[in-house]
Amino acid sequence: MEDQWQESMDFAILIARKAGSVVCAALKEDVSIMVKSSPADLVTATDQKVEEMLISSIKEKYPSHSFIGEESVAAGAGSTLTDNPTWIIDPIDGTTNFVHRFPFVAVSIGFAVNKQVEFGVVYSCVEDKMYTGRKGKGAFCNGQKLQVSGQKDITKSMIITELGSNRNPEVIKMVLSNMERLLCIPIHGIRAVGTAAVNMCLVATGGADAYYEMGIHCWDMAAASVIITEAGGVVLDATGGAFDLMSCRVIAASSRDIAERIAKELQIIPLERDDGKNTN
Amino acid sequence: MEDQWQESMDFAILIARKAGSVVCAALKEDVSIMVKSSPADLVTATDQKVEEMLISSIKEKYPSHSFIGEESVAAGAGSTLTDNPTWIIDPIDGTTNFVHRFPFVAVSIGFAVNKQVEFGVVYSCVEDKMYTGRKGKGAFCNGQKLQVSGQKDITKSMIITELGSNRNPEVIKMVLSNMERLLCIPIHGIRAVGTAAVNMCLVATGGADAYYEMGIHCWDMAAASVIITEAGGVVLDATGGAFDLMSCRVIAASSRDIAERIAKELQIIPLERDDGKNTN
Repeated sequence: MEDQWQESMDFAILIARKAGSVVCAALKEDVSIMVKSSPADLVTATDQKVEEMLISSIKEKYPSHSFIGEESVAAGAGSTLTDNPTWIIDPIDGTTNFVHRFPFVAVSIGFAVNKQVEFGVVYSCVEDKMYTGRKGKGAFCNGQKLQVSGQKDITKSMIITELGSNRNPEVIKMVLSNMERLLCIPIHGIRAVGTAAVNMCLVATGGADAYYEMGIHCWDMAAASVIITEAGGVVLDATGGAFDLMSCRVIAASSRDIAERIAKELQIIPLERDDGKNTN
Repeated sequence: MEDQWQESMDFAILIARKAGSVVCAALKEDVSIMVKSSPADLVTATDQKVEEMLISSIKEKYPSHSFIGEESVAAGAGSTLTDNPTWIIDPIDGTTNFVHRFPFVAVSIGFAVNKQVEFGVVYSCVEDKMYTGRKGKGAFCNGQKLQVSGQKDITKSMIITELGSNRNPEVIKMVLSNMERLLCIPIHGIRAVGTAAVNMCLVATGGADAYYEMGIHCWDMAAASVIITEAGGVVLDATGGAFDLMSCRVIAASSRDIAERIAKELQIIPLERDDGKNTN
């Protein structure tokens, strides 16, 4: 069975690279934008085209597999994770970056079996960085093994997070207040690159000590979650509990100490889950 | 006279590349950190070594020129800009990134005559991107001509800024409150890459529509200020007035409309000027 997932992972890398080249080519053209949930939640024809391309290639090779894709869900498809082998896809993670040609956009492909992520592929296409992680087999970027920083002292940490696309004034206040609490610990700094998948991969490289965000989705974090853990890091829910792919919240960190210290500071933003179940 | 500055600019590119290779090599070694003005204001032996290397090379070639360098000023040298040809140097813009190996660090070399910046060189060494701008001759990145986005509508803009290294709780509150005002306009998003010079160069590429910050220094913005204006952008003081290299504040934008709209929202953080003159 293990060999089968390796073949699937090789295939994921192949199609992520192909999708990335379509995304990079589209960056050179005029981008027409549509708005989703807020004036800052954007989508383009390229997101939809690349997702269709990915799903149809995978379906042809693995007709019995399931899919959760950002644009398919936006178009009304469900996003319930079953035990069936499931491809969890974000065709362009960092659509706002894509629209502005801010040079961080990624194709993110996670693969779960029995609700566990078996492997993840994040292709940051402008940088030409292929991040991969497979359960029990390590994480890599362009073939080089990844290792988190191992930092345990929050006062020496650099943390990545995002302002997000929610423009509800109360949510903005909470997002900023969470940043304020962390800055006042103090910490070394906060960075925001604009894509959840790349942010998590930066933690996997050791380039930052943690990333947290609330209001993201399973397709933003599925692939990168296994890259982080295989690089020696931890993923937790923003509450400090166990990581939950469907909770729309994550803390990815270089150590449990830092993840738990961040969880202690965060005020939890009320969110709908990706699977529609009630939140506690 | 013009030829002379071209020769100086070619020399600046040469030594920026050499300095960048020292910085990149140091990233592979253990970094020992010293603290400057706050627990988040860091400096390393590499900052000091690279600045000495740059200044001694330039002094040998141009013995009559003046210097303002981040680490020389930290060590007690003055930072008064005179009419004499003056090299304004930040050996590592993004020292916190350097310490964490977050992959954005730049060597920044600006050159002013009669208090006007004649040319600027920003070498983002991990990315191997050489940004250059010369007054009246355009701005380039690795030989490719740069052009700002031209965006005039703030509600369609992506803005870069930083949380900064000041850990005074009142300053943190103002920094976050400025972000809140902009997010609520609304705008598309905020990014923070951790180096003023690269942030400004990203605006010059069109990858973001504006960058603003208060609490930076002349060596962070001298070189990039001419790269922005030569790419068709504008630089203003954070108050909306004329850009002032010594004011420790900047708005760099793709259009005057966006720069002025940002200035309208910003609460001004009280700062000491780089030249020690009284603030208004």
